[in-house]
Amino acid sequence: MNSMKRRALLSLSAAAPLLATGCALATSHPATPAAAPTALRGTGDLGVVIERAHGALTLVDTSRREAIGRVEGLGDLSHASVVFSRDERFAYVFGRDGGLTQVDLLAQRIAARVLQAGNSIGGAISADGSLVVAQNYQPGGIKIFDAHSLELLADVPALTASGERSRVVGLADLPQRRFIYSLFDAEAICIADCSDPRQPRITQLPGIGRQPYDALLSPSGRHYIAGLFGEDGLAMVDLWDDAPRARRILAGYGRGQQPLPVYKMPHLRGWAVAGRHAYLPAIGRHEVLVVDTDTWQEVGRIPVAGQPVFVMARPDGRQVWVNFSVPDYHRVQVIDTPSRQVVQTLEPGRAVLHMEFTPRGESLWISCRDDNRVQVYDTHTRQLQASLAVDAPSGIFFTARAQRMGF
Amino acid sequence: MNSMKRRALLSLSAAAPLLATGCALATSHPATPAAAPTALRGTGDLGVVIERAHGALTLVDTSRREAIGRVEGLGDLSHASVVFSRDERFAYVFGRDGGLTQVDLLAQRIAARVLQAGNSIGGAISADGSLVVAQNYQPGGIKIFDAHSLELLADVPALTASGERSRVVGLADLPQRRFIYSLFDAEAICIADCSDPRQPRITQLPGIGRQPYDALLSPSGRHYIAGLFGEDGLAMVDLWDDAPRARRILAGYGRGQQPLPVYKMPHLRGWAVAGRHAYLPAIGRHEVLVVDTDTWQEVGRIPVAGQPVFVMARPDGRQVWVNFSVPDYHRVQVIDTPSRQVVQTLEPGRAVLHMEFTPRGESLWISCRDDNRVQVYDTHTRQLQASLAVDAPSGIFFTARAQRMGF
Repeated sequence: MNSMKRRALLSLSAAAPLLATGCALATSHPATPAAAPTALRGTGDLGVVIERAHGALTLVDTSRREAIGRVEGLGDLSHASVVFSRDERFAYVFGRDGGLTQVDLLAQRIAARVLQAGNSIGGAISADGSLVVAQNYQPGGIKIFDAHSLELLADVPALTASGERSRVVGLADLPQRRFIYSLFDAEAICIADCSDPRQPRITQLPGIGRQPYDALLSPSGRHYIAGLFGEDGLAMVDLWDDAPRARRILAGYGRGQQPLPVYKMPHLRGWAVAGRHAYLPAIGRHEVLVVDTDTWQEVGRIPVAGQPVFVMARPDGRQVWVNFSVPDYHRVQVIDTPSRQVVQTLEPGRAVLHMEFTPRGESLWISCRDDNRVQVYDTHTRQLQASLAVDAPSGIFFTARAQRMGF
Repeated sequence: MNSMKRRALLSLSAAAPLLATGCALATSHPATPAAAPTALRGTGDLGVVIERAHGALTLVDTSRREAIGRVEGLGDLSHASVVFSRDERFAYVFGRDGGLTQVDLLAQRIAARVLQAGNSIGGAISADGSLVVAQNYQPGGIKIFDAHSLELLADVPALTASGERSRVVGLADLPQRRFIYSLFDAEAICIADCSDPRQPRITQLPGIGRQPYDALLSPSGRHYIAGLFGEDGLAMVDLWDDAPRARRILAGYGRGQQPLPVYKMPHLRGWAVAGRHAYLPAIGRHEVLVVDTDTWQEVGRIPVAGQPVFVMARPDGRQVWVNFSVPDYHRVQVIDTPSRQVVQTLEPGRAVLHMEFTPRGESLWISCRDDNRVQVYDTHTRQLQASLAVDAPSGIFFTARAQRMGF
C-alpha cells in the first residue's frame, strides 16, 4: 500500500460535524420562499446540479438547457450524491454532513430533511421507490428510511469481527428491496434484504479483500465490483449465482510498477460498460483500462492526459468521456470505443468535477467548479451547446437515473 | 415464400379509410370533458394502455399500479404505437387510420391531433424531442412534424425504382435528428437526415433483400435489422460504419424445414437483447432463436408453447418473457437466460396481445384483450401484483421509453 493512496482516501472523510446515532433530527420545512410553480410540467427532462460551496441545488431543464430554479438549505454538500423517486418528482440528496434531504423538483422546495448521521457518503433507492437507504461513515452502517416520509425504519450497524463499527461504502440497490454494500474496515460485502424494512436480514460475504473503498453495480445489476484499497485487485460478486460469493479479479491491476502519486481516488461509479467491455480509471496512472466483462481480464490500456477520475460511457457505448484529477482537471478527453483512441481533447473550464449524459446521450453536461459554469456539449459534434452560470458546481444528476439500477 | 406468411402480413394493412396525401386534417380539441387535474405530479411512472376497440387510452400509474384517467377520441387504434416527449408529459399515438394524436398525460386530454395519412404503422421521435416522424403505408412514405405543434415540416414519399409509392416499415430514431426505415416494396433501407427538417436529406441503401416487413434497432443504436418477408434471412446495417451498408445475416433462418402455418407475424420490435445474445421469435415455429450479436450466428433454439409474437428481455437481461399467437395466446412463458430454459408458464388471461416491463424490471404489465384486463406480475416471484379493468387492452407503453433509442 502506498501512502499517497491512503492520503487520498482519508481526505474523503474530512470535516463533517459528529452526531450520535440516536439524535437523527427530523424536520420538514420549506427552504427558500420561492414562488412555488403551479403550472403542469413533465419531469423526465429535469436534473439537479450541486452547488458545493452553498449547500444548494440548481434545478435544470435538459430540453431547454437552462436553469429553472434553485433550492437552498441542504447543509454541507462538499461531497454529495443524489437519487430520484420513481415518478421523477423528488430528488434525495445525501450530504457529506449526514443530511438526507428530499427535494420537490416541481414545487422547487425542500419536502423533508433529516440529519441522519455524522458523516455520510451516499445512498440508494429501491426499484419500487418505497425505501431510501443511506450509507454512513460515522457512525458506520446503513439506515433505511420510508421514501415518502423519511421516517427511519431500521438502523443497521456495520461491524468488524471485533465488534467495532466499520465505515460503509459502495451501496447499490438490488432487485426485491435488497441493497448491497461494502465494509471498508471489515473486508466484507453485505446484502440487506429489506422486504420487511423494519427487520432487514443481512447476509455477509467475509474475506473479500482488504479495505474496499468504493464499488459499482454493472448496468445489468449482475456484477458488483468493489475496489480494494488495501491490495492490488478488486472483489467481484456475480449476483446471478445461487449462492453469491466474492472472487478476486484484475489481480495485476497495479502491476507492481512504480506508482505515481494519487491526487484523487477515482470513482468506481464512473466505470463505463460499453458492449462487452468495461473502461475503468487506472489508479495513479495516466491510463484507462479496458476489461473484457466475459473473462474479467484486462485486454488493453488507453493513454490519457492525466489521472482519470470519471470514465463514463455515452449511453450507446460508442464514446467514453474522461475527466482528470489535479493538475489536469481543466481537460476532458473523448475515447472512440471501436478504435480505442482518444479522438478529442476539450478544455471546457477550470476544475472539471463531474459529468452527466442526457438519457439518450445527445448531450453531456460538465461541471467546471472554478469557472462557476456548467458547460453543455453536443456529443456528436463536440460543440458547446449551452453554458450555465452555477456557483461552484460539482455533481450533476438527471432524473432518468430513476429508471436505472445501481445509481 | 409461403402464402400463409403473406396472408399474415396482408392482414396488417386491412381496414383504414383512405385519404389523399394533401388532406391532412389538423384539429386541436379536448377529447373527454375530464376534470383536468391541476395537482403537481411527476411523470416518470406514467404510461398508457391502448383500448383498441374504442379508440381510447387508459392512463396508468406504475407506482400505485392503477388507472388514473382515460382519454377518448383517438380514432382507429386497432394497430397503434406510442412514443413520448422528452419531458415524459406527452404521448404521441400513431393510429392505424393515419391519425397522429398528441395526448397530455397531466391534463388528461388531447393536446393536438392530425389525420396525416390513410394507413399508418407507427412513428418515432428525435432524441432532442423536437421532431416526430410517422411511417405510412398509404400513401407510402414518412412525414415529419414539429413535436410541439404537429405542424407538418416535410412529406417524404417512399418510391420504388419505377417511381411508385412503397409502404414504409421499421422506422426508428437515430442520433442527430436522423431516422432510419425500410421500404417494403423497394428492397431498400433509407436514412433521413432531418437536421434541416424542412429539407431532409435521404440516403438510400438499395438491394437489401426482398420485402422488409419490420425492423428493430439494437438497444445501443448500433445495429438496424430488417426482417425479410420475401426471402429466408434478415438485412443488418452496422450504423457505426463510416459508410453503412446492408449485409445479410441468419440466412438459414427458416432452414428449409416444413413451415408451420403462420397465424401472426412476430414483431421484431419485441426482439430481446440480453448481454451479448439476442432472442428472437422463429417465424411459424414453436421456438425462440438465440443469436450471438458479435457474430450474428444462431447459437441455440429454445422450445416454447406456441408461435412467439413478442420476445422481451427484462431490463437486466436475466429473463426473457414470451407471448404467443392464436391458439396459444392465453399463455406467457418465462425463459431464464443463463440456462436457456423455460422456468415458468403463466396463464394471465385470454388473448394476451402485449407486455411492457417497468423501467427497472420489477414488474411486467400484460394485456389480456378478451378478459378486458391488464395483469401486473412481479417478475421475481411471478405472482400477480395487480389487475386492472381495461376495455379490450392491446399495446402498453410507459414513459421511460422517452429515455431510450429505437422506441
